[in-house]
Amino acid sequence: MLKVPEHQVAGRQAIDGKLGPLIDNSGHFYKPLQDDDERGTRELTFYHSFSSNTRIPHHIRRFFPVFHGTQLLKASDGSGLRPHLVLQDITSDHLNPSILDIKIGSRTWYLEASNDYIQDCFHKDKTTTTVSLGFRICGLQIYNELGFWKPGRKLVRNFTADDVRSVLSKFVSSNVGPEPDCCFADSVYGGCDGILERLLELKTWFEDQTMYHFRSCSVLLLFDKESFLKGKTPFAEVKLIDFAHVVDGNGVIDHNFLGGLCSFIKFVSQVLADSKGSTMEDKF
Amino acid sequence: MLKVPEHQVAGRQAIDGKLGPLIDNSGHFYKPLQDDDERGTRELTFYHSFSSNTRIPHHIRRFFPVFHGTQLLKASDGSGLRPHLVLQDITSDHLNPSILDIKIGSRTWYLEASNDYIQDCFHKDKTTTTVSLGFRICGLQIYNELGFWKPGRKLVRNFTADDVRSVLSKFVSSNVGPEPDCCFADSVYGGCDGILERLLELKTWFEDQTMYHFRSCSVLLLFDKESFLKGKTPFAEVKLIDFAHVVDGNGVIDHNFLGGLCSFIKFVSQVLADSKGSTMEDKF
Repeated sequence: MLKVPEHQVAGRQAIDGKLGPLIDNSGHFYKPLQDDDERGTRELTFYHSFSSNTRIPHHIRRFFPVFHGTQLLKASDGSGLRPHLVLQDITSDHLNPSILDIKIGSRTWYLEASNDYIQDCFHKDKTTTTVSLGFRICGLQIYNELGFWKPGRKLVRNFTADDVRSVLSKFVSSNVGPEPDCCFADSVYGGCDGILERLLELKTWFEDQTMYHFRSCSVLLLFDKESFLKGKTPFAEVKLIDFAHVVDGNGVIDHNFLGGLCSFIKFVSQVLADSKGSTMEDKF
Repeated sequence: MLKVPEHQVAGRQAIDGKLGPLIDNSGHFYKPLQDDDERGTRELTFYHSFSSNTRIPHHIRRFFPVFHGTQLLKASDGSGLRPHLVLQDITSDHLNPSILDIKIGSRTWYLEASNDYIQDCFHKDKTTTTVSLGFRICGLQIYNELGFWKPGRKLVRNFTADDVRSVLSKFVSSNVGPEPDCCFADSVYGGCDGILERLLELKTWFEDQTMYHFRSCSVLLLFDKESFLKGKTPFAEVKLIDFAHVVDGNGVIDHNFLGGLCSFIKFVSQVLADSKGSTMEDKF
């Protein structure tokens, strides 16, 4: 029984007769291969290459959704059978996950792309935080006492640096309102199992790997408050998703992804440091 | 007695009645302030801000030329008196220095610039290695048994990734020809006083500092073979130069510079590793 993913925060959605991904009840995420451009093929090529690549360390493989091949399925837009990538559904183990989808890099285009594509991306990169911060938030949902906060695309696209800081604070807060308490910051961002440690692990790999360049790829942060409060693990996860624009590294590191990742790490570090500062101030 | 710098490898030169920098015999470099645009003012503003900035660690300040204020001097183009920045002449202590000027970053433009400037830079960045490698060599001179090898601007602008590797090998070689011996690689790139260690020191600072964004800024590598052979120090130096396009960091790290710097570090590391590999092969 296939259905529309409940916790999708960005990308094309399988609603209103449109083509989008589907999930089942056994933890699979089915992503349709587009036929209007090379994206689907490129993503499939990446998953094939990556799955069989023996130079990927085990601790890095964990950042990527498990790939189970392709499958012909009835597409969500009613157009009939279509090949779908069969991937791990990252959210399936979590009841009410808070999710941030962050597209990493200060440019989303690549030299191999068409001129129109480059111009489109160039414009979008300049008018979002992509150029200024080296990343942009593409979508999010944050679970709190009132349910999910899931701002619309327009709002998200207009995010400033301060909005990003605010979202990163809300992501690890228990309260709703203009002054997030950041009470989960230490556990979720800090600590040896925290998100910051995972991001630094990724960074170390990106300083060295010259196999792939990840254009327009997202880091997905997931935090499951209920699991955390019940002592279940993992309550926080970091995954990489969306590989439709991965190109050959040609022996050069992915300096675009790495730079953006470092900038994002600095933002998370600052929110963590500020949360400690404010806790200290509260105490004294 | 002012004269045209002997070891300038990039930028505007004070020859054929054109406006360019001058040097004296006491280690000063005089850079004319342009009056046709904001560049000169921006560079002066940067030097003022940087000189008085107490948050710059001592070991980072060493990467920057010493700033001695401004001085009115007869300009090299015969246009009369003009204010010049008075800077440390980095090459003055070296007889026949090999020099690489590497413009760091995968983009040289910035959001605050005019549209024409952005389009100009965008084109140059795509048609050089700036976009692909995250840096480009702007100029160089390498001293060898035949004298200086100083390729022309056109040749340098068309450099590929392989040309960059070749230049980095030649920079630390004693011979001329298609197979550089890299005999100085270990001393110049490696070791605790080597260029790689200096670049990593810079990288650590760029992972943290959010005060300045260095657009179109160069890392200058200098290697003085004679000093090295005579046991004099320093025989290799790393400096940052050209701050006409430094903009406010606004609390964000300079992910553009950092990404490009990491890519350049990887290139240097690979040349160093390859040189060790080939030495091992020679031995066994």
